[in-house]
Amino acid sequence: MYSQEIESLLKSKKIKIGDKVSVEKGKSRYTGILMPRIGLGDTSSLVIKLANGYNIGIKYEKDVKVKLVEKGRPVRFKPSEVTIRKDPSKPTVSILGCGGTIASRIEYRTGAVSPAFSPGDLLQSFPELKAIANIKGRKLFDLFSENMTPEHWRIIAAEVVKEINSGVDGIVLMHGTDTLHYTSAALSFMLKDLPVPVVLVGAQRSSDRGSSDNLVNLVCATLAAAKSDIAEVTVCMHGSASDEFCYLHQGTKVRKLHTSSRDAFKSVNAQPLAKITYPDKKIELLRTDYRKRDGKKIKLEENLNSNVALVYVYPGIKPGFIDSLRSYDGVVVAVTGLGHVPTNAGGDKYTQSLIPSLKNLIDSGIPVVIAPQTIHGRLNLEIYEAGRILEQTGVIGNYADWTPETALVKLMWVLGQTKDMKKIREMMMTNYAGEISPRSVI
Amino acid sequence: MYSQEIESLLKSKKIKIGDKVSVEKGKSRYTGILMPRIGLGDTSSLVIKLANGYNIGIKYEKDVKVKLVEKGRPVRFKPSEVTIRKDPSKPTVSILGCGGTIASRIEYRTGAVSPAFSPGDLLQSFPELKAIANIKGRKLFDLFSENMTPEHWRIIAAEVVKEINSGVDGIVLMHGTDTLHYTSAALSFMLKDLPVPVVLVGAQRSSDRGSSDNLVNLVCATLAAAKSDIAEVTVCMHGSASDEFCYLHQGTKVRKLHTSSRDAFKSVNAQPLAKITYPDKKIELLRTDYRKRDGKKIKLEENLNSNVALVYVYPGIKPGFIDSLRSYDGVVVAVTGLGHVPTNAGGDKYTQSLIPSLKNLIDSGIPVVIAPQTIHGRLNLEIYEAGRILEQTGVIGNYADWTPETALVKLMWVLGQTKDMKKIREMMMTNYAGEISPRSVI
Repeated sequence: MYSQEIESLLKSKKIKIGDKVSVEKGKSRYTGILMPRIGLGDTSSLVIKLANGYNIGIKYEKDVKVKLVEKGRPVRFKPSEVTIRKDPSKPTVSILGCGGTIASRIEYRTGAVSPAFSPGDLLQSFPELKAIANIKGRKLFDLFSENMTPEHWRIIAAEVVKEINSGVDGIVLMHGTDTLHYTSAALSFMLKDLPVPVVLVGAQRSSDRGSSDNLVNLVCATLAAAKSDIAEVTVCMHGSASDEFCYLHQGTKVRKLHTSSRDAFKSVNAQPLAKITYPDKKIELLRTDYRKRDGKKIKLEENLNSNVALVYVYPGIKPGFIDSLRSYDGVVVAVTGLGHVPTNAGGDKYTQSLIPSLKNLIDSGIPVVIAPQTIHGRLNLEIYEAGRILEQTGVIGNYADWTPETALVKLMWVLGQTKDMKKIREMMMTNYAGEISPRSVI
Repeated sequence: MYSQEIESLLKSKKIKIGDKVSVEKGKSRYTGILMPRIGLGDTSSLVIKLANGYNIGIKYEKDVKVKLVEKGRPVRFKPSEVTIRKDPSKPTVSILGCGGTIASRIEYRTGAVSPAFSPGDLLQSFPELKAIANIKGRKLFDLFSENMTPEHWRIIAAEVVKEINSGVDGIVLMHGTDTLHYTSAALSFMLKDLPVPVVLVGAQRSSDRGSSDNLVNLVCATLAAAKSDIAEVTVCMHGSASDEFCYLHQGTKVRKLHTSSRDAFKSVNAQPLAKITYPDKKIELLRTDYRKRDGKKIKLEENLNSNVALVYVYPGIKPGFIDSLRSYDGVVVAVTGLGHVPTNAGGDKYTQSLIPSLKNLIDSGIPVVIAPQTIHGRLNLEIYEAGRILEQTGVIGNYADWTPETALVKLMWVLGQTKDMKKIREMMMTNYAGEISPRSVI
């Protein structure tokens, strides 16, 4: 609902949600569809969906003029009435909805969001899926992924296990993109002896925009789940700005690296596992070192301790920042370069060393894990004196090539399994899901 | 010095620092040059420089066997005795040393580090420089860049002004790579009306390694300082894994994106300003929107307030993390996606919203600036409800395409100029040094 002032203006002009309007403010004029004011938005701003698909909010003040351009036609979704007959010659894929842009069917005229999760809805929106597999569909929850927490990872993991035990050939998880790579890393650790593919997929552009990537991503993800031999947790997203292909990224080795582009997800310190071409529906393997489908019984290792902090070091960071982390059960520090923090080894009068603070945390039983803030590349604490000084504090992670995000998620998972510092170190440095690539050089 | 135990072992075997030794421990055997034990290193570990140029530390325990392989030849640097005659037909470049890998001349046999800063030293190490310009050289300090602080940025800025006022045609700053992009951003804001190029340069590989990038980077940087028309603060580093060319990056638009590769520095959300080919010493301009050389008098805006925190949001982050930042004068939050934090707009039982905590900070007079944790791309708070909710807290940065590092440095600089919240917001959203690229779309 808009403010009373706006509501009465609209009423007086006989303008309804979904009508095409023009709004003048100062020298600017915007034409588009009047959208409903939802959620916690400022009720004194008019929201207009522009022709480019973006919404714009215009603060309603005295100088704002609103005109009706064209009455909107009421549009309704037909409830799905597709009868689905299972084709025994095709694999069965379960599509589970967690929310996000991809999981929403947006009513074009008003922008109202409808979940599209029943098998009928999915096949109605994406009829191509039918040719690939028998589709089961179910909504777990409907969250934009900035609201996702480690508790949600546990729910997703448990539901994936249920679906796998029901006998499907692969799972697709529709998920918001903001934290998709955190979830994929978490599931990689939580789902042990995975017998079938689990493919996370999202969309960077919503379905009401011509440039939406939801169809191509979902079709490629479903292909990977149904037909690939890659029984790992993976992420399937656009491989380039075009609609030609998607990459299938290893769940621990992928990061969102752009706010808005369709190929925002990139493999970091690894090749993607496969390239999936959309026009001809082909899966081209790019690596061979992946877990294959097998008849193993999946094991759920769902315990997590989410009381972990992530901090990036920066010039001028105060030791007090590190000292303030004593209430956490674990800390991940995104260090500079090959694995450095301010040490003040040379005795400069301005530099404040973080070494005593880090050592205090570790000596008090809080594991400190390091990861490169450069995102790309591998840590190596042996090259510079600063690295050797940091190593002597007892930080965990020398030679690792994980992202800060994967290190964070792994530490949450390891702390869910053990409280023993020696075991924590050993588990952190064990490669469970590709998160530490093999090294060819010292 | 090593531990007494090691020192007496070495003495008994007549092994000296710089000798080639073989060390056996368990099933491993390492052969290399025995290095001195410097700094705060563990004195009970032997340090050996392997043939690949890396040092390795081997804990000395009972099962360790050390053998002399070959006596080292003593090597000394000749003190520089080059007479430098100024060539009036050539531009003059001042090379200022701040430390880091590039600023060190490493004695190959022992790894001892000697600063190489006098003009004679520089020309002796890098004779190619002579053909490009008359070289002045001076050491400001000798810090690995993880120890650099905002105080050092002020010293560098003041020294650059001094050099420029002495009439040189360009400045090269030799700097460690870990935080080079923080320093380049800081100088971009602090040096106003820059009349000549100021080029930061570093090396990813030290000069005792065959793969060192120091020569190519320094030569290209000196070329840019001496001959380009780009009167901006820039970063000159390898543009690819080969020695063919360097890129000249805008100081606010560059980030170290790899721990160890020679082309670790990339322009983010911008093209590099120029490509500088090493074999033929050509400068190819890639952009035209840069500040040109002019006769203006440089202005120093050196005030900084370094009491700023940088935090990355992540799934499960607690509101208390944000609440604990009340002692800072400013906060930069690296948000997910297009500009999101947990809002719990949907009312999920597990999600903890950060919105009240952020609003509290802002309402208490602490500016909160946002930047994308994806590194690449532009913020846009208008697309999703979560963005609009965040915008209403009063965060600063909608539509900015700065990196978290540049946003941090800019906030330190803005807070050095004003304490007025309105002015802070206005200055943050003003493009001073390319840090906010123009938008072509809403």
